[in-house]
Amino acid sequence: MTTTLVNHQIRLAARPVGLPTRANWRFTSEPLPELVDGDVLVQTLYLSLDPAMRGWMNEGRSYIPPVGIDEVMRAGGIGRVVASRNPDFAVGEHVSAGLGVQEYALIHAAELKRSGLFKIDLAAGTPTQWLNVLGMPGMTGYFGLMDVGQPKAGETVVVSGAAGAVGQTVGQLAKIVGCRVVGIAGGTAKCSWVVEELGFDACIDYKAGPVRDGLKQHCPNGVDIYFDNVGGEILDTVLTRINRKARIVICGAISQYNNTTPVKGPANYLSLLVNRARMEGMVVFDYADRYPQAIAELAGYLRTGRMKSKEMVVSGLDTFPETLLKLFNGENFGKLVLKVAD
Amino acid sequence: MTTTLVNHQIRLAARPVGLPTRANWRFTSEPLPELVDGDVLVQTLYLSLDPAMRGWMNEGRSYIPPVGIDEVMRAGGIGRVVASRNPDFAVGEHVSAGLGVQEYALIHAAELKRSGLFKIDLAAGTPTQWLNVLGMPGMTGYFGLMDVGQPKAGETVVVSGAAGAVGQTVGQLAKIVGCRVVGIAGGTAKCSWVVEELGFDACIDYKAGPVRDGLKQHCPNGVDIYFDNVGGEILDTVLTRINRKARIVICGAISQYNNTTPVKGPANYLSLLVNRARMEGMVVFDYADRYPQAIAELAGYLRTGRMKSKEMVVSGLDTFPETLLKLFNGENFGKLVLKVAD
Repeated sequence: MTTTLVNHQIRLAARPVGLPTRANWRFTSEPLPELVDGDVLVQTLYLSLDPAMRGWMNEGRSYIPPVGIDEVMRAGGIGRVVASRNPDFAVGEHVSAGLGVQEYALIHAAELKRSGLFKIDLAAGTPTQWLNVLGMPGMTGYFGLMDVGQPKAGETVVVSGAAGAVGQTVGQLAKIVGCRVVGIAGGTAKCSWVVEELGFDACIDYKAGPVRDGLKQHCPNGVDIYFDNVGGEILDTVLTRINRKARIVICGAISQYNNTTPVKGPANYLSLLVNRARMEGMVVFDYADRYPQAIAELAGYLRTGRMKSKEMVVSGLDTFPETLLKLFNGENFGKLVLKVAD
Repeated sequence: MTTTLVNHQIRLAARPVGLPTRANWRFTSEPLPELVDGDVLVQTLYLSLDPAMRGWMNEGRSYIPPVGIDEVMRAGGIGRVVASRNPDFAVGEHVSAGLGVQEYALIHAAELKRSGLFKIDLAAGTPTQWLNVLGMPGMTGYFGLMDVGQPKAGETVVVSGAAGAVGQTVGQLAKIVGCRVVGIAGGTAKCSWVVEELGFDACIDYKAGPVRDGLKQHCPNGVDIYFDNVGGEILDTVLTRINRKARIVICGAISQYNNTTPVKGPANYLSLLVNRARMEGMVVFDYADRYPQAIAELAGYLRTGRMKSKEMVVSGLDTFPETLLKLFNGENFGKLVLKVAD
């Protein structure tokens, strides 16, 4: 005897031009089929909302295929196993997986690997930390900084989106390495938090004045690593302050994702030539084999208090269309998480 | 008894806006002083005309200081020792040095290193080859391709300014490494030459049609290394065709040097992210310690016919202002050299 569960879902209805609106989404309900051998049914507890989602909504070649029209929107999340015909997963266990923007994800045995399903240890971090420092943003910050940026003690690291999910990991890790760390963020609250709570050396409030002046003041020895989450004018400004052999890690360009005009390329890119510097892109999935090692290291920092994390949790699957926009209007403070169930 | 030699010189009179004109230069004559101990007097035979010269005419921070107003214009060249009070250099010997745009360069002992003065072996290459494959363009191509680009056999290398001084070295070296090599150049003559004489696999004539179409046709497996001498639209177009882990070597941006509007940044730079690619600048001077090794290797290729070189020689010091412009209007075909004396 099973009770038929109704699964509420949010699907991509149309590709957005500029900022996504409700018109780009379709809300659907469907009964969940019965499980067959190998299936795991996961109830979504928390979903990760990420700037990259905006890119997945566009048509065209990228590092992963776009979400198809009428498909459930792609999202990583933390859930609880509520039914299982897979001996590796027991009811009640907490897992991380690509759950999608829906209340339940039925994962077939053949899709286990692609979904990224794995059990999480709540002793290592809370569910929302598993979407933040111990999740994709943490992995992105870890491998982007350590592998692409290659920080050395004493160097100056600048990170934009400093109070965001990736930025907080990058800045704290760079401090652990022994770097001078300067964040760039919007507003006093975020800037104060990364300095006072996370221990950044300084934070430039791009809403309060020219970033150029802040860089002059807070990076007296220039910039050795710039970890870029935003693109646009800020990238261009940092390019004027880089040191010889600087590394610019291109992680994202949130300022450009909702453009209805062409992306603004970095006009100061010839600073790379003058300074023998490099600008390099990264996609976190390339490091999947090494996630366990990075998670163990980061969990250790959380446990010993060397790293902190901040998540902003908004409740309600149905708020997804508006909550997503908080990433783009700067309202999110910390990792943005959608709470779907307790 | 010495004869007082009169030295004709060309000095920077004013910083140009856009393309330099005669008004940016001042022609001077001055008698050469008598030599003191340690001095070497070099008569200029050939001067190297390079796109980088345009940058040296601008004010502002770069990889070397700008040429000062009223200073003799900076230029590398090949000359002959005509007087010497330095036991290391004998009258009649041929040398390479930063001679400047003038008929004679008097090099004091204290300036020897800064001037880069060294004897050249005319058995290894002609004087103009010593300004081309065996000179700064050759060194730039060699270290830019081999060290920054890191080509592997079977990869596809695209080089812009393919018939220019740096481009010809890059393309031929990449062939020697075992790469597929596609040039980009302006006009049928240059394109035919790099394919038929230098052995490139193909060359895209940017004046004849969209570079994008040429890349699709001639780089069926995408682009692994793009060696960029031009910047602008061509850089942006190549960025749409790069492969995963591609390397873009930023050597120059001749399309942008005479801009009176801001430099056009590469709008498609996020292709670096999608493709985990890197864009890296290089300045040849960093490799000075390794010039002898590279010269020996390249001279070997010239001797055995595995590499060819082409120089375009224009005679007359006084033609310098107009001859320099051939770099920017595409009239030069091969390495542009100014012949000053026999």
